[in-house]
Formats: sequence, structure tokens, C-alpha cells
Amino acid sequence: MSPINLVCLDADDTLWRNEIYFRAVEADVAVLLSQWTDSSNVASHLLDVERANIVRYGFGVKAFALSLIQTGLELSGGDISAATIGEILRLTNTILDQPVELLDDVVDAVEILSAQWPLVLVTKGDIVHQEAKIMESGLSHHFRSIEIVAHKDRGTYERIFRRHGVDPGAVVMVGNSVKSDILPIVELGGFGIHVPHDHGWALEHAELPEHPRVYHVDRFAAVAGALQQILTST
Amino acid sequence: MSPINLVCLDADDTLWRNEIYFRAVEADVAVLLSQWTDSSNVASHLLDVERANIVRYGFGVKAFALSLIQTGLELSGGDISAATIGEILRLTNTILDQPVELLDDVVDAVEILSAQWPLVLVTKGDIVHQEAKIMESGLSHHFRSIEIVAHKDRGTYERIFRRHGVDPGAVVMVGNSVKSDILPIVELGGFGIHVPHDHGWALEHAELPEHPRVYHVDRFAAVAGALQQILTST
Repeated sequence: MSPINLVCLDADDTLWRNEIYFRAVEADVAVLLSQWTDSSNVASHLLDVERANIVRYGFGVKAFALSLIQTGLELSGGDISAATIGEILRLTNTILDQPVELLDDVVDAVEILSAQWPLVLVTKGDIVHQEAKIMESGLSHHFRSIEIVAHKDRGTYERIFRRHGVDPGAVVMVGNSVKSDILPIVELGGFGIHVPHDHGWALEHAELPEHPRVYHVDRFAAVAGALQQILTST
Repeated sequence: MSPINLVCLDADDTLWRNEIYFRAVEADVAVLLSQWTDSSNVASHLLDVERANIVRYGFGVKAFALSLIQTGLELSGGDISAATIGEILRLTNTILDQPVELLDDVVDAVEILSAQWPLVLVTKGDIVHQEAKIMESGLSHHFRSIEIVAHKDRGTYERIFRRHGVDPGAVVMVGNSVKSDILPIVELGGFGIHVPHDHGWALEHAELPEHPRVYHVDRFAAVAGALQQILTST
């Protein structure tokens, strides 16, 4: 029996660009707020607001838009104009309208993986936006199921693995976020393949542990090779 | 073989109160905007904004908050103050903080149903908020699965039924929205049990069809009886 029964893939910043759009909007909003504060203060205040809002708002563009508006209200001391609030809304909507930009080699690499392994996509954020991106990506037919979840924590992964009837020790999760894609799986006894991405979100930051079940590749096309390594190591 | 293999239940305004909180916030925002327009114009403008935003925002409190802010910006002609925008944010957040209020007899009725039928919860909106409400309701253990979806349309229901391995003709869906809970199921060949709720959302409105597979009850506690009627009629 193969020691790998399921391969799960993260989507945002693993299959397609994501974080870069949020940071571009943040930079534009920092310009709008420059009469009151500087851009580093916008970044740190926004992060505090997002951290405080995450339990009730969760992840995704709508949560980001509401947190940015709150940041604008607070950092301007209530002096921000309606026009500037409208501009923040317009800027955040551009993220929703942004066409999906797949990362290098992802189309071929996912096809190669799907020929050998049962694949599941695991992503968090707004359901409507994530579904739209998955459809637009043209990759959805490669996945046995698509799981859009509230939080990528141990409990969520356990529910997914149970529904697919697989033991966590026979699962590999592939993604760019150490915190969301690697640590929970390794804690459950599975394998993680970390594919780093240049742009990370501070709230997602965690150190990559040295662990015999954690593999590191430099690009998505190398995931197939890492899976072979796992096979031969077990 | 029973002609019913799966009973699906809607959540918002079928198991617990929902729409009433949105309408209360809308009324409060209409007061905030009363120097520019009257409340009926707020209602109709908000509905237009929500209709235009639904493809990119989907359903739920965050979408409502963003559409309300947009409505305030537009109806004030850009004269709305930062303080009033902040008040709109605060009001919409109260919906997220609102404790779950189960509708009459729901606790007992869901328990009775779960003893006889495999139950699935089907709801749309923000994942994080819906999951929080489901946990808080204390009802989650009665459900074989919980499906938080982007849109309650035919394609979504077909995917759910396929995953549960049931024929659509052997499914009963129970809910308050004719458009989302009854029509798609009946089109697929299944049964609908409509449980009306006093507060409906205009974007969810549809006429209740006269159809041999559509049943009508006046309260949730009567769903078990309607299921028996379906059994004896088939």
C-alpha cells in the first residue's frame, strides 16, 4: 500500500498570485492617508485591526476592505472624507475583479500530480471569490474535491481527512504558508511540502520547522519530485 | 426502499432568526441618512446596490456592511462624515455579535427529525459567521454534514447530492426561501417543504408554486408530519 493516499494543495500564493494584490492596495491606501501618517504606520495599524477582526470577519477581500476602512477612520482621527472611503472601496474591489494569474509551471505540474495522486484543494477566504478563482483557473477538474474552509487548523484538516476516509499519516499537504499548510498537517502525523512564495502575509507567518516529515522545494514544479522522495523514504 | 434518503435543512430564518437583524440595522442607518433621503429610498437604493454587488460579494454580513457603506456614500452625495461611516461599521458588527436565537420548537423538532432521517444543513453566507452560528446553536451533532455554499442553485445542490450518493428524487429540502430552498430542489425532481418566515429579503423573493412535490407547513415543528405525508403519497 502506498504511504500517500491523498495530496492536498493550497491555492492562494501556491497555485496563483494573491498576496501581492492586497499589498498593492495597501500601498495605494497609504498614499491616501499620507496627510495623517506614514506608510509603515498604516501597515502596522492595519495588521492590528485585521488581527482583532479575524475571529468575526475571517479571511478574504471583504474582511480586508472592512479592516482598511476602519484603519482609515482611525488613523485620520475621523477626518477622512467620503470620497477617500469610496476610493478605498474601489481599490479593494479591484482585487475581486483581478483575473487569476497562475504561478509558473502550475498548469503542467497540477496535471502531472493529478495523474498519479488523488488531489484535494484546501483554501480559506470568501466562498464566492474562491469559487470564482477556482473556476477561472481551469484546474478544478483535477481535484477530487474542493474545500473552502473558515480556518486551516487541525480540526478543519481532521474533518476533511475523515470525510475522505484517509488516515492523516497518509496525507501530504502542499502550500506556501508554514502556519496554515505545514504545521497542522505535521502535528496530525502527515507530511508537508513547503513551496515558498515571495509575498507572505504577516498574520500567516511562522517558522519552518526542521522535521523529517517536512519537505522543502523552491517551486511548484518540484512538488512531484518531493512526493517521490516521501515514497522512497517510508 | 424509502422514497426519502436525505433531508436537507436551511438555517437562516428556518432554524434561527436572521433577516430581522439586517432590517433593524437598515432602519438605524436610514435614520443616520435622514438628512439626505427618506427610509424607503434607503431601502430601494440598498437593494439596487446589493443586487449589483452580489456576484462579487455574495451573501452575508460583510457583503451587507460594504453595500451599506456604498449606499451611504451615494445617497449623501459624498457628504457623509467619517463618524457616520464608523457608526455604520459598528451597527453591522452587532449582527456578527448577535447571539443565535433559535426559532420556536426547533431544538425538539430537529432532534425528532434526526432520529428518523439523515440530515444535512445547507446554508450560504460568510463561512466564519455561519460556522460560529452552527456551533453556538448546539444542533451540529444532528447533521451528517454541514454545507456552507456560495449560491443555493441547482448546480450546488446537485454537487451535494452526488457527494452523498443520493438521487435528487429522494431528497427533501426544508426552508423559508422559495427561491433558494424550494425551487431548485423541485426542478431537480426532489421535494420541498416550505416553512414561511415573517421577514423575507426582497432578493430572495419568489412565488411559491403549486406543485405536487411542494409541501407547505406553518411552523418548523410541522416538518416531521409533512415528511410522513410525502412517505404515504409516494
